[in-house]
This record gives sequence, structure tokens and C-alpha cells, in this order.
Amino acid sequence: MDLKIALAQINFTVGDVSGNAVKIIEAILNAKKEQADIILFPELALCGYPPLDLVLEKEFVTANKEKISEIAVHVHDIVAIVGLIREDKGKLWNDVAIIQDGKIIEYVHKINLPTYDIFDELRYFNYINNPEPVNVKIKGRNYRLGIEICEDLWDDRYETKVTRELAKKGAEIILNASASPYQVDKIKQRIALVREKVLENKIPFVYVNLIGGQDELIFDGNSFALDKDGNVAAFMPASEEAIGYCEIKNGKAVNILPEPPLSDIKGLHAALLLGIRDYFHKSGFKDAVIGLSGGIDSALVATLATEALGADHVSGFAMPSKFSSDHSLKDAEQLANNLGIHFDTISVEPMYESFLGSLEKQFAGTSFGLAEENLQARVRGTILMSIANKKKALVLTTGNKTEIALGYCTLYGDMCGALGPISDLNKLDVYRLARYLNEQYGYDAIPQNTLDKRPSAELAEDQYDPFDYEVVSPLVDDLLINKPVTELIEKTQDPDLVYRIMHLIRITEYKRWQAAPGLRVTSKAFGQGRKMPLINHFK
Amino acid sequence: MDLKIALAQINFTVGDVSGNAVKIIEAILNAKKEQADIILFPELALCGYPPLDLVLEKEFVTANKEKISEIAVHVHDIVAIVGLIREDKGKLWNDVAIIQDGKIIEYVHKINLPTYDIFDELRYFNYINNPEPVNVKIKGRNYRLGIEICEDLWDDRYETKVTRELAKKGAEIILNASASPYQVDKIKQRIALVREKVLENKIPFVYVNLIGGQDELIFDGNSFALDKDGNVAAFMPASEEAIGYCEIKNGKAVNILPEPPLSDIKGLHAALLLGIRDYFHKSGFKDAVIGLSGGIDSALVATLATEALGADHVSGFAMPSKFSSDHSLKDAEQLANNLGIHFDTISVEPMYESFLGSLEKQFAGTSFGLAEENLQARVRGTILMSIANKKKALVLTTGNKTEIALGYCTLYGDMCGALGPISDLNKLDVYRLARYLNEQYGYDAIPQNTLDKRPSAELAEDQYDPFDYEVVSPLVDDLLINKPVTELIEKTQDPDLVYRIMHLIRITEYKRWQAAPGLRVTSKAFGQGRKMPLINHFK
Repeated sequence: MDLKIALAQINFTVGDVSGNAVKIIEAILNAKKEQADIILFPELALCGYPPLDLVLEKEFVTANKEKISEIAVHVHDIVAIVGLIREDKGKLWNDVAIIQDGKIIEYVHKINLPTYDIFDELRYFNYINNPEPVNVKIKGRNYRLGIEICEDLWDDRYETKVTRELAKKGAEIILNASASPYQVDKIKQRIALVREKVLENKIPFVYVNLIGGQDELIFDGNSFALDKDGNVAAFMPASEEAIGYCEIKNGKAVNILPEPPLSDIKGLHAALLLGIRDYFHKSGFKDAVIGLSGGIDSALVATLATEALGADHVSGFAMPSKFSSDHSLKDAEQLANNLGIHFDTISVEPMYESFLGSLEKQFAGTSFGLAEENLQARVRGTILMSIANKKKALVLTTGNKTEIALGYCTLYGDMCGALGPISDLNKLDVYRLARYLNEQYGYDAIPQNTLDKRPSAELAEDQYDPFDYEVVSPLVDDLLINKPVTELIEKTQDPDLVYRIMHLIRITEYKRWQAAPGLRVTSKAFGQGRKMPLINHFK
Repeated sequence: MDLKIALAQINFTVGDVSGNAVKIIEAILNAKKEQADIILFPELALCGYPPLDLVLEKEFVTANKEKISEIAVHVHDIVAIVGLIREDKGKLWNDVAIIQDGKIIEYVHKINLPTYDIFDELRYFNYINNPEPVNVKIKGRNYRLGIEICEDLWDDRYETKVTRELAKKGAEIILNASASPYQVDKIKQRIALVREKVLENKIPFVYVNLIGGQDELIFDGNSFALDKDGNVAAFMPASEEAIGYCEIKNGKAVNILPEPPLSDIKGLHAALLLGIRDYFHKSGFKDAVIGLSGGIDSALVATLATEALGADHVSGFAMPSKFSSDHSLKDAEQLANNLGIHFDTISVEPMYESFLGSLEKQFAGTSFGLAEENLQARVRGTILMSIANKKKALVLTTGNKTEIALGYCTLYGDMCGALGPISDLNKLDVYRLARYLNEQYGYDAIPQNTLDKRPSAELAEDQYDPFDYEVVSPLVDDLLINKPVTELIEKTQDPDLVYRIMHLIRITEYKRWQAAPGLRVTSKAFGQGRKMPLINHFK
């Protein structure tokens, strides 16, 4: 055995079958130039992942069929493994095409179809439980290639242990085409699991992951290969498009690389930038509009947006009311100056007063409360949306996961926006990432006062966030992954708090139903991966 | 064979395991009093349908287990068939418990788990492909009961033909526990399919359907039974809670009922009222706030809301701008007077001017356009939300399916609201239902001028809806169910129009991501049953 394999960690776009085909052909020609024997693309490379209900459009499936034939023409002196959607026997399949000498020599079906959290592949695809290596002749020698697709590796919850079956049936190497979304710690899990499979089956393993943002999801790349002893044969950058190579001789890496350094916070940072950048650029936008309150959440979002889009493409607006503190305006302006973004101040007072005047009859005899608080937030949302509409920009929402969980946010107010970059970071993660960025910059780009001050929505007199985030943020995260209530009471020693937080999450589902998409960075984010009933009387 | 069967068409609430158990016990005791031999409840009666990710909470599954044991204690001299979620062998099942003499004598699993459109049961449940009748002794005679759950009847897309298998294995009667959401024409489909099964297998069939609104879904009841000759043995009211009875002797109805009259528009009307009423009452609200534009959509919504909630619980607000026509205000007021609801007028001008003043710098040098149009809609949305917040009411959105599909609506503007009662009715259906209601009332409750005038958003001078709804409304509906594009070009003889509408639907997905839940009345509504990517470059 002597193989040079190209890992095509490429940023594909959902639905762009033609554009993706061009990228695939380019990569094939490049890899051929580098004398690779095999080039492996990510899952559903041709149509992008996840295509969701696009799969149900006949024309879309047909486009996959047409374009894979066009690609095949370009494949010579190399084996290309290209993911696509395919109709066969009246059913839909999540497949890879194995292409050699201008022809598709075989299709391999995905066997384990994830249907949980953000995944719903059983909604679309069929499967068979019979993994079989593919016979391919390369440089005059017959190889048995164990080709599998993404979840086929993660066989814990499935009956079919695809990797083991393939090895048993004589596969000499495993080639896994993945579209595995970024999560904190996920890259460690991937390497650990692949190493387990490698050592169990004494077989090298090449893992190619998709890269790029798609709506809420961030595919972080981090493709890699391990040889049959578990040594690193290839490791590709997080969140960057590239083609990597690895050479495997008799199951062993020709060049053994050091173990990759895996920093959680660095990975998180890179993933968020990729998620923001791709959301804007793939949607045809360049510019972001952000409300700057002087608080930590909007400061972090503005900083990330500036890195992702460039300072010229970010505008920050302070929108003070009579409840705003002096420091909130000062901190917002300081941040904008540090980042070098456009900054302006627009008071909400004239509009707020105007609404109160017009609503005098409706509000008569009532005292200041939720309606007035929300009204301020909605005036702000409307200001930002108006500017964004005028400038063809997108508003970024600045809510964090803890706040969103507790419903500590205003629908059509601060929830206005096209994307929530930190909606899956809890309040403690927000501080952690902000401090990390300041360290990276070597100075307090995010003002120290923003980091130090007590969080406040400033929608009423002397209002401060009514949560101890040190306790509540981890509690919310635990509740979202359905940790048993008894365990959480044990952990917090505060049953009242646990029940109160559970109740808050439950009664605020309606807000999240209408929330902007948010970048997912944990195993359980709000958004498409969480489907809770609005009407829910479970206690 | 001589059986009296109770059809328990009951309005259960998702999550309310305790409350549902009380209702179940009551129904069992009533049916026993009526000397029924069997009482059949709808699918997942105990926990409500669909419980969605509540199923993933351990405490919820445990509650099902505890409550079914409590129910069992009350079951004597009758066989009760009660739907519930159950954990067995470490897996989750969508089951019915067969209860007799105070004990659960057997569980039956659902076999065909729908995973398309709004259904995602493979996300939660397991299945086996082995339907088997249940042996039960009733009045000293052994019966083989063919018990199945909802989709087991709709076996078109599944390998296992549950009804036929049960009949083959000696079932003497089919008892189907359903939670089948309302769709126009669905009741006809149900009866036709059951009749087909009955005649194929020479076996009577009892079909009990859930009733009640749950978020976007309306379960319309319409439970029925056919005897082995296809005669109607029972037929229960649409959209009303009740227990019905049927007697079957040697496979034949003791009392043959006439074929039920199945009026589409009457069913639609009843379903929408149920959907509105349950959404409010199950969410703990009584009052609705609606913006009245003088147009047909808001007029219809106000009329439906008045019927569902009562005139005292509906408030309509006209919110004119300088672009509003005289007749819009007049028509809105006339409608409110006809309905007897609270009515007031709040001009958007002061707020609109105030925003324009504060945004002067941002808007400088630009001309009137989308930003200004949206701004008016957002001022209106904020007015309605402020009133609703103050009065603990819910705002109803008034968009119809055609407009929503084309993105002819403003996010955070007229899209503000808790529920969209007509979001799954196309513009032609809106007119049809409005005319039907006027006919029912015997006068023009919805003013004739509202029905006659040319639709306009009135957000700019001389602005009228830029669509010919006679063509565009059916076209949109066809596109949503993925009719082939070639067929639609053939039908409309206008390829440019077809491509333009497809494009509009695609580029406005982001608005619908943040839309309020809307009542589903067709086989393909926006909302949970349609999962399209936002970033989507397919052309």
C-alpha cells in the first residue's frame, strides 16, 4: 500500500450546484498536479450541507445528477470521491460518487442517518445496513477502500458499526466524507474517536470535513488523517479553505506530524468569525449595523463583526434613553473608537415620548412597566432596522444564550436582526471570549469598564440583571441538555432557583420561535435543533 | 361479535399529563355508565400531541408512566385504549396501553412513524415491523382487536401495511387512535381511505381523532366508524369535544347513519375558530389586538377572532398615515361597528415624523423607499405590541399565505404578533371565506367595499399590490408542494412569472424564519413543516 491522498477541505454553498462543481473540478485538477492518488471531498460537497427541504425539489436532485456527470469528465489519473444527493429506485440517498477514468465506478450510501438535534436526515434519505468496501485499481494494484459518510463514524446510537464492518470486510483504509458542525471540544472528540477506530481495526483513517458557515451552522474543517498506529498523518487548519495531503505507506504515515494544538477558545473565535463572514457574504451583504449599549454583549458582537467584516463595514449606534447611565454612552464610544468603526448616537427619547403621547388613552391610569420597557427596546430595534434598510446592511443581534433562555430580551426590540453571533454563548463564555480578545490585542479594545460593570438592560431606574450568572448560566446550559432535575438541585442546592429557571425557559419559548438565527457552537443551541411546543402545560 | 365502542374525541393539552389523566378517567367512567365495552382515545392522549422535544425530558416520560398506572386503577368492566409515551428497553415508543380490570394487559407500538412535513417521529421513537392483534376477553367472548396508531392507517409510503397485516392475523375490528391535523379535504381522504381498508379486509374500523389546537396545528376531531360493509356506524362533530358511541354486531352497524355532509368551507371555518380559541386559552390569554387597515385580510382576522374569543375580547386599531385612503379608515370603523368590538384610531404620523427627524443624518441624500415603507409598518407593529403588553393581550398578525410567500410583509412591522390565523390561506381563499361569513351572517359584516377594492399596502403614494392573485395565489401554492416547474410554466404560460415568483419565495425565507406561528390548514404551510435553508444559491 502506497497512497497519496488529497483532503479537499472546501467551502461549498448550499444550493450552488454549478459553483460547487467548478470548485470540485479545480480541486481535482490541483490534486492531480500534486500526484495525489485519491481526492476526498466532504459530505454532500456538490449540493452543500445541509440542503434541507431543497432536497424535495425535483430540479435540485436532477442538478446533482447532471453536474456529477460533468465532473466525471475531468477525472483522470486520480480517484475522486464526491458527495451528492441521488435518486435511485425511486428513493433519495445521501451518497458519495467514486469517480475514476472519466466514469462513476460506484456509489456508496450513507448508512447511519442522524435524526436528532439539528439533523433530520431520515426526513429525506433512505439507508441500507450493508457497508461494503469499494474495489479500486490504483497504480496497477487493487485496493479495497472503506468509504463512509460522516455519521457512519459516530456509530454509538446505531446498530451498524460501519467502520468495523468495513475493516472486517477487508478495507485497507477508511475514507470519511464529513459535514460535522463546529462545537466547542468537537475536534477533540473527532480525533479521539477516529484514533479509537484506528487502533481497534489497525487501519489508517482519513477524515475530511466541510468548512464554511451555513445559516446557524459553522463547519470548522479541521480535517485530519491518522495512520494505523494512531499517528497524525495530516492535520488541516480550523476554519480555512485548503487542500491538504497525506501519504500513507503500508498503513503508516510517511511523515508523522506532531499532535495538533487544540485550544478551545481559539477554535471558538475562529468559528464565530467564519460563521459571521459566511452568513453575510453568502447572503450578499457586506455591512453590519449594531446597537452599542456599552455592555459586554454588544461590545463582543461589534468586535467579532469588525474582525469578520472589516472596520469599514461595521456601524455602531448608541441609542440612549433617560435610563441610560453616562458610562454606557462613554463605553460604547470608546469601543467604537478602539475598533475604528463608524459610530453615532441617536437618542430614543423623541420617539419614545411620541409613542407615549399617542398611546396616552391606552396607557391611562397604568403605571410604568413592561410595556414601557419593551417600547424603548422596540424604538431601538426600529432605528437599527431603518438604518440597515437604508444602507443595505444587516442588523446583528447581541443577545447571549443565558438571556435568550430566560426571555430577558424584547421581541421586535433587541431581538431584531439577521443573525445572533453570540446567541449560543452563555454569559460567562461572553466574558471569557471578550477577555481572550483583549489579551490577543494586547490592550483593552473592549473597555475595562464594560468588562467590570454590573450587567443592566437600563430600561428602568436602577435596573440590574436579576440573575447570578455564575450559577444561572451553567444551570441553563444543563437544563437545555436535559440533565435530570434532581441532579441540578443537588448541584445548586437551590430547588427554588432550578424550578424558577425551568419555568422561565418554558414560558418564553414564544420569543425564541421568532428569534433570528444564531450561530450554533454547542451541542444544544436554540434554533432549528430544538423543537419545543409553545403550548406546554408540563410542570 | 357484539361490541359497543366509545369514541373519546377529547381536547387534550400538550404536557398536561395530570390534567389529561383526569379527563381520561372521567371519559372512562362516562363510557362505562353508557355500558360501552371499549373506549378508544386519540394518539398520545395522555401527554398531548405533538409533544416534540418534551419527549427528551426524562421527567416527562416518567410522568406518563406514573399517570397511566393511576388511570388503570379506574378501569373496570370496560377496555380502555390510551395513547402515551413509553420507555422500554432503553428506547422510546409511541404506544397505546390496553387496560382492563385495573391492569395494563398489553402495549401496542406505533409502526409507521411519519417523518415529513410537520412530523418528525423518527427523531424520537422506535418501531418494529410486526403488527399483531391483541387478545381481549369481553363479556365472556375472546376478541382479537386490531389496534393501530394514526399513520399505521396511511401505509402508502411504508413497507408495513399495518391494517392488512392485522386483518390477516385475525383482527375482527380495527381501532385506530389518531392525531391527524386538519387540512382542507382531509376528512374526505380519511373516510375514503378507511372505506378502502374496510372493503379490502371485510372488517369494521373505528377511527378516533384528537381535537384541539396546538401551536400551528388544529386537530379537527371528525372521528367516525365504518362497519365491514363501509356503512357509517358513527360520525362525530368537527372541532367539538365529545364522546360518541357506535354499536357493531357481527361486523355490521346496529344503526347505519347517513353519509356525513362534508363542506370544505364550513370545516375550514370551524377549524380556524378552534385554532384561535385554543391558542389563546391554552396560552392563558383572553384578548386579541388587531390592526385594522380597512383591507380584506385584517377584516377576516378580526371577524374570526370575534367569533372565537367574543366581541368583548377583541380590540381593533386603525393606524392611518398620510398614505392611507379615506375609505380605509371608514371601512375599518364600519367593520368594528358591525362586529361590536372595541375600536380606536391612532395616527402613525407623529412617530413616523419623529423617527425621520432622528434619522435625518442617516437618511440624508436618499429618496423615499423601502426603509420609509418598513418604518411605517414598524411603528404600527410597535403600537399594537405596546397596547397588547399593557392589556395582557396577544396581537394577531393578518398576513395571508400568498403575501407571506412573496415577502410582501414587514418583519417587526405587520409581522408582529403571537399568531397568524390566516397565514395558510391564500388570497383567494381569504376572499372566499370572507364571502362565506357574510352569507352566514346574512349581511355584509365585512364591508362590501373591503371585498371590492383593489388590495393595497398603502405604504406609499398610489401603491397597489403588484400581483394578479388569480394567477399568483395558486402558483405559490403549487410551488410550495414542489410541483415540477415545467408543469407550472405549462399551466401559467408565463415562464418569467414562474421564475420571478420562485425567486421571491427563495429570497424572503429569512422573513418567515422569524414569523409568528400560523394556523396550518393545508398540506404544506409555512412554519415547522417547511425547513428551507436561508443561504440557498440554487437557481
